[in-house]
Amino acid sequence: MADLRITAVQSFLTQPQSARLVVVKVLTGEPGLFGLGCATFTQRHRAVEAAIKHHIGPFAVGKDPRNIEDFWQAAMVNGYWRNGPVLNNAISGVDMALWDIKGKLAGMPCYDLWGGKCRPAAAVYVHCNATTPEALADAARKRMAEGYQHIRCQLGGYPGLEAERLVPLAGAPPGAYFDPRERLRTLPALFEFLRRELGDRVELLHDVHERLAPIDAVWLAKALEPYRLFFLEDVLAPEDIEWFENIRSVCATPLAMGELFCHPREITPLVARRLIDFIRAHPSDLGGSTPCLKLAHLCDAFGVRTAWHGPGDLSPVGVAANVHMDLALHNFGIQEWSFPNQAVQDMFPGLPEARAGYAWANDRPGLGVDFDEALAAKFPCDDGNPTWTVARLPDGTLWRP
Amino acid sequence: MADLRITAVQSFLTQPQSARLVVVKVLTGEPGLFGLGCATFTQRHRAVEAAIKHHIGPFAVGKDPRNIEDFWQAAMVNGYWRNGPVLNNAISGVDMALWDIKGKLAGMPCYDLWGGKCRPAAAVYVHCNATTPEALADAARKRMAEGYQHIRCQLGGYPGLEAERLVPLAGAPPGAYFDPRERLRTLPALFEFLRRELGDRVELLHDVHERLAPIDAVWLAKALEPYRLFFLEDVLAPEDIEWFENIRSVCATPLAMGELFCHPREITPLVARRLIDFIRAHPSDLGGSTPCLKLAHLCDAFGVRTAWHGPGDLSPVGVAANVHMDLALHNFGIQEWSFPNQAVQDMFPGLPEARAGYAWANDRPGLGVDFDEALAAKFPCDDGNPTWTVARLPDGTLWRP
Amino acid sequence: MADLRITAVQSFLTQPQSARLVVVKVLTGEPGLFGLGCATFTQRHRAVEAAIKHHIGPFAVGKDPRNIEDFWQAAMVNGYWRNGPVLNNAISGVDMALWDIKGKLAGMPCYDLWGGKCRPAAAVYVHCNATTPEALADAARKRMAEGYQHIRCQLGGYPGLEAERLVPLAGAPPGAYFDPRERLRTLPALFEFLRRELGDRVELLHDVHERLAPIDAVWLAKALEPYRLFFLEDVLAPEDIEWFENIRSVCATPLAMGELFCHPREITPLVARRLIDFIRAHPSDLGGSTPCLKLAHLCDAFGVRTAWHGPGDLSPVGVAANVHMDLALHNFGIQEWSFPNQAVQDMFPGLPEARAGYAWANDRPGLGVDFDEALAAKFPCDDGNPTWTVARLPDGTLWRP
Amino acid sequence: MADLRITAVQSFLTQPQSARLVVVKVLTGEPGLFGLGCATFTQRHRAVEAAIKHHIGPFAVGKDPRNIEDFWQAAMVNGYWRNGPVLNNAISGVDMALWDIKGKLAGMPCYDLWGGKCRPAAAVYVHCNATTPEALADAARKRMAEGYQHIRCQLGGYPGLEAERLVPLAGAPPGAYFDPRERLRTLPALFEFLRRELGDRVELLHDVHERLAPIDAVWLAKALEPYRLFFLEDVLAPEDIEWFENIRSVCATPLAMGELFCHPREITPLVARRLIDFIRAHPSDLGGSTPCLKLAHLCDAFGVRTAWHGPGDLSPVGVAANVHMDLALHNFGIQEWSFPNQAVQDMFPGLPEARAGYAWANDRPGLGVDFDEALAAKFPCDDGNPTWTVARLPDGTLWRP
Repeated sequence: MADLRITAVQSFLTQPQSARLVVVKVLTGEPGLFGLGCATFTQRHRAVEAAIKHHIGPFAVGKDPRNIEDFWQAAMVNGYWRNGPVLNNAISGVDMALWDIKGKLAGMPCYDLWGGKCRPAAAVYVHCNATTPEALADAARKRMAEGYQHIRCQLGGYPGLEAERLVPLAGAPPGAYFDPRERLRTLPALFEFLRRELGDRVELLHDVHERLAPIDAVWLAKALEPYRLFFLEDVLAPEDIEWFENIRSVCATPLAMGELFCHPREITPLVARRLIDFIRAHPSDLGGSTPCLKLAHLCDAFGVRTAWHGPGDLSPVGVAANVHMDLALHNFGIQEWSFPNQAVQDMFPGLPEARAGYAWANDRPGLGVDFDEALAAKFPCDDGNPTWTVARLPDGTLWRP
Repeated sequence: MADLRITAVQSFLTQPQSARLVVVKVLTGEPGLFGLGCATFTQRHRAVEAAIKHHIGPFAVGKDPRNIEDFWQAAMVNGYWRNGPVLNNAISGVDMALWDIKGKLAGMPCYDLWGGKCRPAAAVYVHCNATTPEALADAARKRMAEGYQHIRCQLGGYPGLEAERLVPLAGAPPGAYFDPRERLRTLPALFEFLRRELGDRVELLHDVHERLAPIDAVWLAKALEPYRLFFLEDVLAPEDIEWFENIRSVCATPLAMGELFCHPREITPLVARRLIDFIRAHPSDLGGSTPCLKLAHLCDAFGVRTAWHGPGDLSPVGVAANVHMDLALHNFGIQEWSFPNQAVQDMFPGLPEARAGYAWANDRPGLGVDFDEALAAKFPCDDGNPTWTVARLPDGTLWRP
Repeated sequence: MADLRITAVQSFLTQPQSARLVVVKVLTGEPGLFGLGCATFTQRHRAVEAAIKHHIGPFAVGKDPRNIEDFWQAAMVNGYWRNGPVLNNAISGVDMALWDIKGKLAGMPCYDLWGGKCRPAAAVYVHCNATTPEALADAARKRMAEGYQHIRCQLGGYPGLEAERLVPLAGAPPGAYFDPRERLRTLPALFEFLRRELGDRVELLHDVHERLAPIDAVWLAKALEPYRLFFLEDVLAPEDIEWFENIRSVCATPLAMGELFCHPREITPLVARRLIDFIRAHPSDLGGSTPCLKLAHLCDAFGVRTAWHGPGDLSPVGVAANVHMDLALHNFGIQEWSFPNQAVQDMFPGLPEARAGYAWANDRPGLGVDFDEALAAKFPCDDGNPTWTVARLPDGTLWRP
Repeated sequence: MADLRITAVQSFLTQPQSARLVVVKVLTGEPGLFGLGCATFTQRHRAVEAAIKHHIGPFAVGKDPRNIEDFWQAAMVNGYWRNGPVLNNAISGVDMALWDIKGKLAGMPCYDLWGGKCRPAAAVYVHCNATTPEALADAARKRMAEGYQHIRCQLGGYPGLEAERLVPLAGAPPGAYFDPRERLRTLPALFEFLRRELGDRVELLHDVHERLAPIDAVWLAKALEPYRLFFLEDVLAPEDIEWFENIRSVCATPLAMGELFCHPREITPLVARRLIDFIRAHPSDLGGSTPCLKLAHLCDAFGVRTAWHGPGDLSPVGVAANVHMDLALHNFGIQEWSFPNQAVQDMFPGLPEARAGYAWANDRPGLGVDFDEALAAKFPCDDGNPTWTVARLPDGTLWRP
């Protein structure tokens, strides 16, 4: 197969569960040889689709699919402006598909291309949300009984329980109201309660979702230290990450960060100064598997472990790319997990599955996942102004999402 | 006018000169009251268009156009992932239009809203390119005779003259070949020649356009020190900006950087550590006038001056936004300038004009620029895979753009 | 092939040219499936052989050769003490062989496993040594005529010309006498002469070989700055590398370092602080291809390029591993080259070849190199106290090698 | 005795207790004048033996044994690659033997050569291991009753008690399984118990043996702060030592580190930044008494005290070298101790002895220890793939040893 070329790049929008998925299919001149990639940016799926259709797709056609690194480097700079979530997702769709093709050419799962298995399966953490501490403890106990030992505990979702009680200031615009200072009052007590209820052995996690002012984030990280979290996630917004230095100077709470990262300048200084413990990058937001593998190696040099974002906002193709990295990278930390509904399972045969606390990939070549295009067409995306929450403080101030 | 709402957000693609322009028009419930903004990302215009049409536009409709800051904050985070050139440009289109509306509501030019004039006009620098040092000196002398005292001097464009002589390695892929090391050989001699030919009083500038390896950038900045440049631009790529520290430690060449910046983590550390002298941000790439005004104030605190990118890659609406800032900001440094052709002048009545080294804005309310939609429709964009150069080194390596 | 095991690890000592080569062969349970690796530590070949025979080899037998990362991690720590050149070389022999096996299983050259080609061939630099500046210029011109554009220029070899003139102090012990301060007197003049003779376009390199006191190294790096070296190599000893900070603060001479590195603490801080421009690591001294790929990715995050050490002190198997990385890594800088004699070429069919300034790998699966064991046996190693020079200063002081 | 030469270097492998010992004997031209040194690297004894036999030994023969510093400097660099545990141990064997010869020539114990006694004996700490807190307290009380006031307390050895309960993930490879997070749960409670049981006056120590992720190490150091440890040892792996900065910023637990160190770049920055309190270097791993004396002096400049590693992994010759340093160095901190069995006592007449909390050296010239070669031959080493534990996490991940 001396000559091999990319002949077409197709994008598919589908919404079988909550997220609007963007799946990319790269076709080659070799009959039957194609790859699948994930370009899912659920709130901006139409912009990603246009970037693939008009820009990244045409740029890829005609190139040799085996030269992944060269494609990635060229695609990143050929629009001149770069490093944002729309373009990176578009590039990711092609990049992951090229690794899928590479695995099929080699007759190997991607984890084997990437150095082979460091472990048979990847430990996952699951989400538990409830509106009372007691219900949260019950939800956690249910997952623990199923074998899950890493539980992310949230009270009332991201806005928090206080949202229900809030009466915004007269004249304030509509929005998802919440009170960041209330978190400081409730969260330490919540985790004291959970440790008492759930015992010492289960690993507890919490996601602040960037909803605190910087110094309040420092205070909270310190206040939660006695409860020995597995990690505290996104305690700062991407715009505030220099404040991690302040957190490090006052406590030893493990810190996870990065699902919003899309630029090396966000990541490299944070890692090289050892200011976080788990990199939570969203692979398609970084531009695919190629930059993720490099990022993982960077992290390894500084004692930082991986905790790839997903899978709620990823297609199962992206989930598979995560799990293959989880198996092959020595500095794997943990894998976030959510459970696909039946439509997703039917649409993506071969998708990784979680059982009793661990996610398993199959051993088929490449990423090992298929895609039923006809079924996808039956689940069109809801295009009505997709948006993340417009979070506001009690006085009406627009706040972090 | 107690109640005022955005009723529609329209985007227009047009290519009257070299760049594919994206112009945004924000309509309001007040008959005849509208604003114009610039969302120009010339190599990814279709992705920006989709972002406006499907995401940012629908999000703006129904909001009070007077609450610019609240809109900007909400728009930046409501897709959750953020800080990239496609989404920032889409937001910029609306943001600038809201400032245009604000001025029209006040009956004031934007420079008056922003604090009033610090100077009657804005000094500009112009581009001179040629294929021999002698022709370059002649081109500069011609501009100097017209009154321009800040001249950017380039030999052979960005690829450089050496591109013509290069024979790429057999088997290397197609691309715009160039040799970064050749720059080190020719540029110091070129500026020695230009200083001899043009004298000591004219201000000379040079744009490296990120085309050097980091240590070669350090070397060049030092080697050009004797020729007293007004500034050396983009001597490093956005991914390499930590190397400005190395440059600062060995020489005093004034440094300009930032046309590609789209994330605070690229900018704040660089400014706060005083590693550059001129911020060259592209306003629509940052997200409009709102973030630019703040950035200028940040720079002022650290002795950094403005040199807004443009206008080659901006519509005249964006150029007007630049010039209004140039007049009102105390720490204005210089304004980049290029000359619009007749089609552009006809399409954008009221656009700022440069004469004898200075750019002038009119004193009409808002940004002072109109837009002839019918004429724009006569200049549709060339959609054929728009791309910046795919720059490659002599051995085929993909390089900085 | 569900079950696949390493069945034997063999080591071969042979000396077909100047270096004592250590070649490792890893056999598997699959008939005909084996891999070759390089474990060459030319002055301590017997210690490496014992480490393979008694320690690393028996540890590898029985393991799945596909799980390279797991093997590497386990082998590095299972003797408890770690990170030295003897053990790392022994591990490298197996690690490279496992990548060779991986490529054979995939039916792909290693460069394809590692992301595909970024360039068709790897630019090389060659050595020119002479005893007068005139003869050195002649030697360089000869190489330039053959197409080599990167020339390492040394006067009188590592001891330097002054060695011939030196009369050591009475009573000083035997050794290879030289005078480091003499270098400061002669090298700037030499490179002024070479630039005059050879012109501006050829890339010149120089290797100090750690032979200067730290402050003299700083002085020399600055004194050579005007001659625009491609790089200055090993201007400091591994024990003195903190002094690179001093060099950086006074000049922009490109710096290469690392052929002696065998510990992450030597490398990570140097790279993360951007104190060198080219990493010159000796792959087998780091422990094989696995750590080299990670190191290259670390370097990429900080603008540092690769210049793998070799091939004089590597077997052609190691040379092939270098060239495969050179093709696949985006941040490749340059490849050191020396020319194999006929015995080496016969012993290692398929070895990479350099022509007209570039090294080429073949496209056979794995590393693409074979090994004629019977021929190797005809070139036994000279075991008579192998040693690098015992360098001494004029007064008898033992100095850097 | 104007002329004195080394005439032979012999190495002996023997295993009278748990460790495989490597003892070096240096013979001289003076009849009856010889020295003994320790080159013990228990898991890689055969590689060290080969390094002595083929490389370091032949290099030493013919040199004047009185010029120890010159020998050490030359031996360190004459293989060119350097600084690893195999070669350093080989050099150490000769270096200690040369100090033994020096003492015999002077008719003085080594402590007298090194400045004379600062104290008559060296305080030691001893190991107590048990499988329950109660049994551990009993073991400690027994040692305290014997006069030992510095007790290292470990529950369940290095793998920890949890190892017994662990069921590794299905498909995970064989290994010594353990759970680092379990330590965080049990250790603070353990030391609270021990302080309650044993009182406030006894000095307690604990060895983490690098078994924690970096942030967990920070957490543990802080959590143990209230129990006023004499020191916490190896809380980080050698690859993670930059994290000591994080520990220093959150707590005042005394820190000991260094038994694995074999390179100046591991040590100098750590000491010069005062990030540890006790240097735990393994003398033969550094290359003998010569580098240890210098290291102690470096530490003295920064307030760091000695706590030489051993004696479990040292021969009694190395133990003697430790105790002689303990007596002579002002910044002595503590000496690790373990008790030799009868075979060891018989094989090494004159070995130092511990009584009532202190170790005593004899006052014979040199290191004061003899070696019964005939007896040693009766305790051959077990050569069956010697290995430290292959420690794995519950999911199968290879972990720190």
